[in-house]
Amino acid sequence: MRVTYEELYGVLLRALLKAGFEPERAAPCARLFADTDRDGVYTHGLSRFPRFMGMIRRGLVDARARPVSVLRRGALERWDGRRGAGNLNAHDSMARAIELSREHGLGCVALSNTNHWMRGGSYGGQAAEAGAVGLCWTNTMPNLPPWGASEPRLGNNPLVVAVPRTRGHVVLDMAMSQFSYGALAAYRARGEQLPFDGGFDSEGRLTRDPAAIEESGRPLPVGLWKGSGLALVLDMLAALLSGGRATHELPADADEETGLSQVFVAFDLSSFGEAGASARVADEIIESIRQYSADGGGVRYPGERTLETRRRNLEEGIPVEPSVWEQVKKF
Amino acid sequence: MRVTYEELYGVLLRALLKAGFEPERAAPCARLFADTDRDGVYTHGLSRFPRFMGMIRRGLVDARARPVSVLRRGALERWDGRRGAGNLNAHDSMARAIELSREHGLGCVALSNTNHWMRGGSYGGQAAEAGAVGLCWTNTMPNLPPWGASEPRLGNNPLVVAVPRTRGHVVLDMAMSQFSYGALAAYRARGEQLPFDGGFDSEGRLTRDPAAIEESGRPLPVGLWKGSGLALVLDMLAALLSGGRATHELPADADEETGLSQVFVAFDLSSFGEAGASARVADEIIESIRQYSADGGGVRYPGERTLETRRRNLEEGIPVEPSVWEQVKKF
Repeated sequence: MRVTYEELYGVLLRALLKAGFEPERAAPCARLFADTDRDGVYTHGLSRFPRFMGMIRRGLVDARARPVSVLRRGALERWDGRRGAGNLNAHDSMARAIELSREHGLGCVALSNTNHWMRGGSYGGQAAEAGAVGLCWTNTMPNLPPWGASEPRLGNNPLVVAVPRTRGHVVLDMAMSQFSYGALAAYRARGEQLPFDGGFDSEGRLTRDPAAIEESGRPLPVGLWKGSGLALVLDMLAALLSGGRATHELPADADEETGLSQVFVAFDLSSFGEAGASARVADEIIESIRQYSADGGGVRYPGERTLETRRRNLEEGIPVEPSVWEQVKKF
Repeated sequence: MRVTYEELYGVLLRALLKAGFEPERAAPCARLFADTDRDGVYTHGLSRFPRFMGMIRRGLVDARARPVSVLRRGALERWDGRRGAGNLNAHDSMARAIELSREHGLGCVALSNTNHWMRGGSYGGQAAEAGAVGLCWTNTMPNLPPWGASEPRLGNNPLVVAVPRTRGHVVLDMAMSQFSYGALAAYRARGEQLPFDGGFDSEGRLTRDPAAIEESGRPLPVGLWKGSGLALVLDMLAALLSGGRATHELPADADEETGLSQVFVAFDLSSFGEAGASARVADEIIESIRQYSADGGGVRYPGERTLETRRRNLEEGIPVEPSVWEQVKKF
């Protein structure tokens, strides 16, 4: 079924107010959730809302908390997220990094003690909308074996890079596993094999069978040993810069995953006094790859599909899973 | 054959002086080349030196040029590499980023108009030695097809992230292709298949045959569509921040590859007044993954092998390819 953006936003807002959010915090929190479904990232919006509400109920997410500045050093600041709503904490942190970038050319906020940021691309898009290059990442609970290991000791630590453009911002939002557990479950439910090897089975053989990977707990890192290394250093940077927890200090249970560390960096493109020129350069780079597809369909840039889905969902309504929708309406 | 570090350094230094480098520039340039072989990265040290000398001879690399500051905006600066030696330009840029980070908490130098930086890990290690987190990347000539395309329109754009530790810095140095052309050639020369799919053959099928990938020109990006996106945004950031060239503006010929754009970022860990604590956190994160290997051999961190090789090469001598060694001695 499909609902309008206004319906979706309204239902989320009401639930957040009932859960104890102040009105001026409930509104942007509901908007961040609703925008995620509007843009087609259904795994990180409404479908996660019941878990989010459960974490508020159990005191793992504090509906009243706002991040506080802990240390300031020029363009680099440390903030404590105080276990507040992860999407609000992340949004506030990127907003502060953008402010810092306007003053210093670039700015960085390292955030400790926060919660799942839901869709990371939101904060990349936020920077791009402000005319800044945005770069941010989060650590996660352990859910990915390091290369050469069979135990999940790394997080899949999503990395986001966003570049403003006049004809649609480029927003890369990539976790360090080739396929998320959500994607594996979706392929399995459809009875499909993965299009590429997605992990090892319990005997240590590469496989495209989603169920075998769910069973072994050994999804592949992107780029095999390379993405394993990248996930590791992203966790190190997040913990070191924020003074917060590293992946190995986080509970390995999605319902208990709290106390994350994140980093938000913004580069102010107007630093060089030529915002128009930057946008043109960005457009030219995208044009330089678009016509070279193997099948004639055109090469896509990260974030392109999002814009198409947004247009369609605003026109036709946003798809929601009826059972989740009913559940959220009752909160 | 093996030579001592001093022999290698001496031969490189003499060649650079003859090629027109001033003594105070020839010395660090020779050191950066020699350190690369000392650390076992044989693809990016002595073996590239003849090409480097050829580019000086043909005026593509200017032995006398030093980078100049073009624009300053707080913690963010633009420098023009003036087509000087790529490794010196990169080293100077990271040194300046570290200086900026001491003043502002973090610092960024965006460098245009430079040349191949040889081993990117050098500049990560440089930051880590200075107690800073280092992050840098370069664009390259087009050598990697975007996901869904058959023409090489992206660079493999190496990304470097380094974290200082007391027990060996972590230095990740990863290009955005799963296997470099150098690696493909080495597997082919040994008559071996790749251990994992490394690209598409000319019929568009995934293959482990290195020769088939060399022929098709379709190596795999790390993480398939994900690394393709990451290579794209790294190029965009390098060109936008430096005001220099993007991959699509670079000649697709390794002997002519000049005018690159690079970004160097340093985060000063002493910002938080607890350098000792940072090192301890970094050590704990590495320890948290080490014991979890599937085969009992221990999980390695990025840069670990480098340290072992360095120790061995300093003790036993540095392996050099006799024909290249003879050639370089005659420069």
